[in-house]
Amino acid sequence: MRTLTVELGERSYPIYIGSGLLEQIGSYLERHSVSTKSPLLVVTDDHIAPLYLDKTVEQLEHHGYRVVTSVVAAGEKAKSLSVFEDVMTAAIQGGLDRKSAVLALGGGVVGDLAGFVAATYMRGIKFVQIPTTILAHDSSVGGKVAVNHPLAKNMIGAFHQPVMVLYDVDTLQTLPMRDVKAGYSEMIKHGLIWDEAFADWCYSHADSLLSLNREDLAYGLEKGCAVKAAVVSQDEQENGLRAILNLGHTIGHAIEAVGGYGEFLHGEAISIGMIGSALLAVNRGRERSIYTRTKEILERFGLPTALPKHVDTEQLISALLHDKKFKENLIVFVLPVAIGKVEIVSDITLDEVRSVIEQLKEEA
Amino acid sequence: MRTLTVELGERSYPIYIGSGLLEQIGSYLERHSVSTKSPLLVVTDDHIAPLYLDKTVEQLEHHGYRVVTSVVAAGEKAKSLSVFEDVMTAAIQGGLDRKSAVLALGGGVVGDLAGFVAATYMRGIKFVQIPTTILAHDSSVGGKVAVNHPLAKNMIGAFHQPVMVLYDVDTLQTLPMRDVKAGYSEMIKHGLIWDEAFADWCYSHADSLLSLNREDLAYGLEKGCAVKAAVVSQDEQENGLRAILNLGHTIGHAIEAVGGYGEFLHGEAISIGMIGSALLAVNRGRERSIYTRTKEILERFGLPTALPKHVDTEQLISALLHDKKFKENLIVFVLPVAIGKVEIVSDITLDEVRSVIEQLKEEA
Repeated sequence: MRTLTVELGERSYPIYIGSGLLEQIGSYLERHSVSTKSPLLVVTDDHIAPLYLDKTVEQLEHHGYRVVTSVVAAGEKAKSLSVFEDVMTAAIQGGLDRKSAVLALGGGVVGDLAGFVAATYMRGIKFVQIPTTILAHDSSVGGKVAVNHPLAKNMIGAFHQPVMVLYDVDTLQTLPMRDVKAGYSEMIKHGLIWDEAFADWCYSHADSLLSLNREDLAYGLEKGCAVKAAVVSQDEQENGLRAILNLGHTIGHAIEAVGGYGEFLHGEAISIGMIGSALLAVNRGRERSIYTRTKEILERFGLPTALPKHVDTEQLISALLHDKKFKENLIVFVLPVAIGKVEIVSDITLDEVRSVIEQLKEEA
Repeated sequence: MRTLTVELGERSYPIYIGSGLLEQIGSYLERHSVSTKSPLLVVTDDHIAPLYLDKTVEQLEHHGYRVVTSVVAAGEKAKSLSVFEDVMTAAIQGGLDRKSAVLALGGGVVGDLAGFVAATYMRGIKFVQIPTTILAHDSSVGGKVAVNHPLAKNMIGAFHQPVMVLYDVDTLQTLPMRDVKAGYSEMIKHGLIWDEAFADWCYSHADSLLSLNREDLAYGLEKGCAVKAAVVSQDEQENGLRAILNLGHTIGHAIEAVGGYGEFLHGEAISIGMIGSALLAVNRGRERSIYTRTKEILERFGLPTALPKHVDTEQLISALLHDKKFKENLIVFVLPVAIGKVEIVSDITLDEVRSVIEQLKEEA
């Protein structure tokens, strides 16, 4: 079992990564002073519920916890104010009080939704993350929780750190292969922005990671979380450094949007976005090897590195301009300086972006 | 002009109290580093808008601010998730960014709603309170913001401190007399829980306060805010001491609920609740003078001190048990020990409450 601490002063918390952890959930909660006198709320989705909900509730009840559950429909649509209100109703009807905890059993969507419930129920109660996807290694660090507004993603939210993250790698074994691949996109990103050796390790362990070898998986998750934790510890409220975590996300979010949040998984869109950032950097005079190596690593994981030709360039540009990173006709971008190092560039023009989008489509 | 600082470490903020302040709103914002580059959102209600909105917007635009407004229907119903979403829509459409501020121009309802928008828009932006009621001197200190869930009041919220409070006593001159009286209820409470001399001062200045003498009003608001600030500074997140601010609120909230949030104003319900707390204390052996003096002060302000006979005792008990302060058949109450001093008692039985409710009805 691996343990990593996210250092945030009095809000510091541990991430436990290993096999068989879900069977010990009760003792982990006790160790973190979650009272058995107050009911717990477990939030999950209808994909995860049939696999792990009964087992989780059973373990918790075995430890003397009273448990209320709320199962939402799988997918991004669960991050709406209306589903948020439904989960709040479950919390109130279940009698949760100020010493209760909300447990997020699932991926990033469940974590964001349940986390925002925990952040705002009675002005904030305890929050525990139990990620069941590889991708969630990213969202489980940093305390960003949110729901969507019909006009913009993640617009309504808070910073609310969990009291612990319990990462049971066994729950990842049931992931569909497409989610496995897409899940590694953010892990690779953590190498690309911070740690060339880790990016190289990902590349050389791709086969074992894709086959979900528990030991390598746990190591990769720990390293990925550690990079994010290092960044977040220095900039909890996203005032500066934390922006480097957005590598690939400006173009990536636009790709997700034009695909109607269905055609591309988040990890896939980010993968294409990271190639886009590498091209922007190369077009501005950086070493071409930044682009070729980035592409090589992402392709090794079967991740997309080109934009399908049917994607409309102007529609993509328009989605990108709706993004919050836009300022006075110039766009802020995180660009690679080398593998393992990035910089924030705030004067990227629309023409540069347009040209890179065309390059991304030529690759297809 | 009086200035009071609420001491909360890096979240400390000033409360400015005086005449003619609204005409200087722009310079106050500049002084608090609210950028003119990002749009502001002013939230108010349809009672206040005709009186002060144009003037406020004009002052802000005069100082180079771009202003977006959101006018909600007056009354508690504005504290719903659906109105919250509407205000969020105005913020997004108005292009608010992470350096923008939300200004609450109004009473407690507007402050709670706008504050929760500020707490959660893009995970938290700046918040400025411009209270236009006497009662809001209470809610403008402490950073508690919230909306209601259909099943319970203030259930969805956050702690989000304003960057400043601008209390222009001129805006209080247009208050209906019933709101003036009810507004003093929380001010008197601050004397009753913390400062006998201030309670006495309120009593002896009742006439001048009720006629809205600007100087006495400003002094009373400052002292009331100061008591609350002293309590909140010691317990920002409501883990202990802060509970004393609930004097009169357990019975008071139940009275508001059975009255359908229309029959009794908050201040009126709290007034009756404070008499109830005094009776509970006296029934347990405290000096009877606690009760007679509390009643004398409240009556001096024309505040109700008895429960109308038509209020159903069991319905009131049932509303009270729905309140979050209830635990294992015993109820936590804040009870006076003397004028200016309270204690938290956690073993009040239902029979004691029932008997006090009957006493409150006999007074009518």
